Amino acid sequence: MQSHPDCLQLDEKGRLRHFLSIAGLSRELLTEIMDTAESFSSVADQAVKKVPLLRGKTVVNLFFENSTRTRTTFELAAKRLSADVLNVNIATSSASKGESLLDTIRNLEAMHVDMFVVRHASSGAAHFIASHIAPHVSVINAGDGSHAHPTQAMLDMFTIRQYKSRIEGLIVAIVGDIRHSRVARSQIRALVTLGAREVRVIAPRTLLPEDIQSIGVRVYEQIDKALSGADVVIALRLQKERMLGAFLPSEHEYFSRYGLTEQCLKLAKKDVIVMHPGPINREVEIESRIVDGARSVILQQVSNGIAIRMATMVLAMSSANQLRSQQQ
Amino acid sequence: MQSHPDCLQLDEKGRLRHFLSIAGLSRELLTEIMDTAESFSSVADQAVKKVPLLRGKTVVNLFFENSTRTRTTFELAAKRLSADVLNVNIATSSASKGESLLDTIRNLEAMHVDMFVVRHASSGAAHFIASHIAPHVSVINAGDGSHAHPTQAMLDMFTIRQYKSRIEGLIVAIVGDIRHSRVARSQIRALVTLGAREVRVIAPRTLLPEDIQSIGVRVYEQIDKALSGADVVIALRLQKERMLGAFLPSEHEYFSRYGLTEQCLKLAKKDVIVMHPGPINREVEIESRIVDGARSVILQQVSNGIAIRMATMVLAMSSANQLRSQQQ
Amino acid sequence: MQSHPDCLQLDEKGRLRHFLSIAGLSRELLTEIMDTAESFSSVADQAVKKVPLLRGKTVVNLFFENSTRTRTTFELAAKRLSADVLNVNIATSSASKGESLLDTIRNLEAMHVDMFVVRHASSGAAHFIASHIAPHVSVINAGDGSHAHPTQAMLDMFTIRQYKSRIEGLIVAIVGDIRHSRVARSQIRALVTLGAREVRVIAPRTLLPEDIQSIGVRVYEQIDKALSGADVVIALRLQKERMLGAFLPSEHEYFSRYGLTEQCLKLAKKDVIVMHPGPINREVEIESRIVDGARSVILQQVSNGIAIRMATMVLAMSSANQLRSQQQ
Repeated sequence: MQSHPDCLQLDEKGRLRHFLSIAGLSRELLTEIMDTAESFSSVADQAVKKVPLLRGKTVVNLFFENSTRTRTTFELAAKRLSADVLNVNIATSSASKGESLLDTIRNLEAMHVDMFVVRHASSGAAHFIASHIAPHVSVINAGDGSHAHPTQAMLDMFTIRQYKSRIEGLIVAIVGDIRHSRVARSQIRALVTLGAREVRVIAPRTLLPEDIQSIGVRVYEQIDKALSGADVVIALRLQKERMLGAFLPSEHEYFSRYGLTEQCLKLAKKDVIVMHPGPINREVEIESRIVDGARSVILQQVSNGIAIRMATMVLAMSSANQLRSQQQ
Repeated sequence: MQSHPDCLQLDEKGRLRHFLSIAGLSRELLTEIMDTAESFSSVADQAVKKVPLLRGKTVVNLFFENSTRTRTTFELAAKRLSADVLNVNIATSSASKGESLLDTIRNLEAMHVDMFVVRHASSGAAHFIASHIAPHVSVINAGDGSHAHPTQAMLDMFTIRQYKSRIEGLIVAIVGDIRHSRVARSQIRALVTLGAREVRVIAPRTLLPEDIQSIGVRVYEQIDKALSGADVVIALRLQKERMLGAFLPSEHEYFSRYGLTEQCLKLAKKDVIVMHPGPINREVEIESRIVDGARSVILQQVSNGIAIRMATMVLAMSSANQLRSQQQ
Repeated sequence: MQSHPDCLQLDEKGRLRHFLSIAGLSRELLTEIMDTAESFSSVADQAVKKVPLLRGKTVVNLFFENSTRTRTTFELAAKRLSADVLNVNIATSSASKGESLLDTIRNLEAMHVDMFVVRHASSGAAHFIASHIAPHVSVINAGDGSHAHPTQAMLDMFTIRQYKSRIEGLIVAIVGDIRHSRVARSQIRALVTLGAREVRVIAPRTLLPEDIQSIGVRVYEQIDKALSGADVVIALRLQKERMLGAFLPSEHEYFSRYGLTEQCLKLAKKDVIVMHPGPINREVEIESRIVDGARSVILQQVSNGIAIRMATMVLAMSSANQLRSQQQ
């Protein structure tokens, strides 16, 4: 068992074994994920949207936190790979009954499942599970606390590459609640690794993490300056349910200072693309007409999410299968 | 996008594109649905109850209102057609998170799903979704408010045809809470379109809709007269949960005046069949011994429900596929 | 329809038709179940963990009581046999709506399902359903009240046979809450039928059923004596949620008198195996280091659970299929 969390997700040949966070993954590996996803993009256009790559494999959606949206994308990805899918919702289930997390995992493992897709409210949960898992089982992090959401970050990279043909040299501005956003954290890591020229963040001070300067981004106070010359603008969801009045003056004031408007978007590059991880609060963090406008690639992000999830499932599972056949 | 709701469900060649309500569909089309269902009836008797018609297609059960019973029939129908099924229960899910209905639909669409089976507490919800959907996606209405429940009506027509070999010329009596029943509304439409000689309704005045005379039915005050000479009697569920005491004196009094009994059934034709959309309140709207008796075709209705749902799924999806291939 | 519950589960040729309880099943039949399970054990080691034995069949998990763990094992077993699985959770569903249990069953039957896996809080529920079911449908009891949990008992027998190569002649000690345990009741029946030399139970008097002496076990007051010379020790879960303070002094006192410790385990045979049906309360009914120790076969029980469930599904379904083809 490897103890350093960044090593945990690679096998001894440096291939993806689990997909837990962007941290520790090389530019080559992130590129391999995107290239693999590209080969799956066309599956959705076929009359029969299925490939038999994971036939007879069992994927468990292990959700300790409700998220129909994320669960749905992983379930679809697994089914299009012909896997059997088991939805286990620990939040609402009797599976717990006082049983420890590790005992729950051991039990499912003993049923010869092949992959856990894990969603958890605590940062580090997916790493914890991966560090205790059997050698033939893979873990994919579908969001842990405010830590990471790597498949979301990779579908964003994939979407940027699709429209800009590269990440290298781009100026990317991320607007909104960076502090509570595992999405932003993973995006920043991926952008830096893939060679973006500049990653800018704009948010109220209270919505910025304290270590923000150290992770390779430039902090802006004003949205106008941050958007100036940007190739890509990413608006984040204002996670109202996570903030109890303490961080923000009012929704209205937030929109007037940090909301993404046509007005301020004029300062970006002419061919700027606008992204959002969803679900969107229209007129709160972003003007509704931008969402539905020509520069928005938001729905393309959703489509790409299926391809990226298929890609990471196949890559991780093929590493696990190699380990398995070596043992036999 | 077509604006008239009755046109919405047909493609430009007049084939079924969505299945939203009986209104606006021709006798020929209703007959085509029944003929297609007939070809699927035998699937349930095969050792392997599956046909590969929708293999690789994704059907989303999009339920804004809980209904295990209806969801189950659509899930079974889709699986017997070899489709992948995704259950999305918006009532209990976090999918909403303040997201608009249209954004939810756009997101699922972007995941390249092929069909929405929609259940909603508001009348018109399925029409609304269908009028905003992508060209390659079909919508089937699985019940919207008190408006329509067209697959239920068609399984009823199919069952009548099975036992009486035709709808034309028949006398059909519908007993019970017409006002709150989307089933009754759809049944009446279908019966009139398919040429029933007379559609009779019997209910307390408070459980009749105000426009009842205009839709081609005859209103009876007394159950005895309404049943006289009937070929088919349909008892409706007394939807106790929808009525808060205002409409009805008491369950007992209701049964004594409008309950379907052996006694009053004697006035119907000798070969009368008795139907009920379920779930049944035994001894409330219908005598228990009638439910289990020789004239009851209630369980045959349930069986036929699977075949009718398979038929409408296949018909709508084949229209959508043609649209799709034309675009490419 | 057969009235004696013990006969109900066999067809006229003595083959398994339903699997409701261990009572009434012969040593030969229990052995056949284990032999069939053995043939399925290897499926989990294949790259494609699927066999097509139940392709095109529909298995309904009919759960009147929540149990993610048990539902999961049956769902996996059915999917590995290529069946379509329908999860119907009556506890949380609107399926009831005042509908009787029998009407719910009749409705699902009419949809041409092939098997019900039933979990219910009331003893006898699975028997009741089996005694009213259509000839082509099988019922498997997945736990009814404090009555029986026969697939759990059979996976335990299978596990014992795997490690000890036989049941005959063994000394088996069962420790804990016998009174509330359907698992213990089924285990004792199976052990006696399969020829165990001695079945010992150890529990506080308040956690023993009143008829305990009559069912072929020896009651011990002290755990030391009960474990002396045992080949197999089974610790039961202390079902805290079922006991409201009335039966027990305190968790601590319970552990000190009836908890399974390394200390007392020394009195058992040297090659003793330790079992537990899960979920485990570590340090309540069993020391944590025993759970994770070399004599524990607890996770092997979980693995074997899939094979046993596959075996009983296939056996019961093949009896039902024969009945079906005779009728045609």
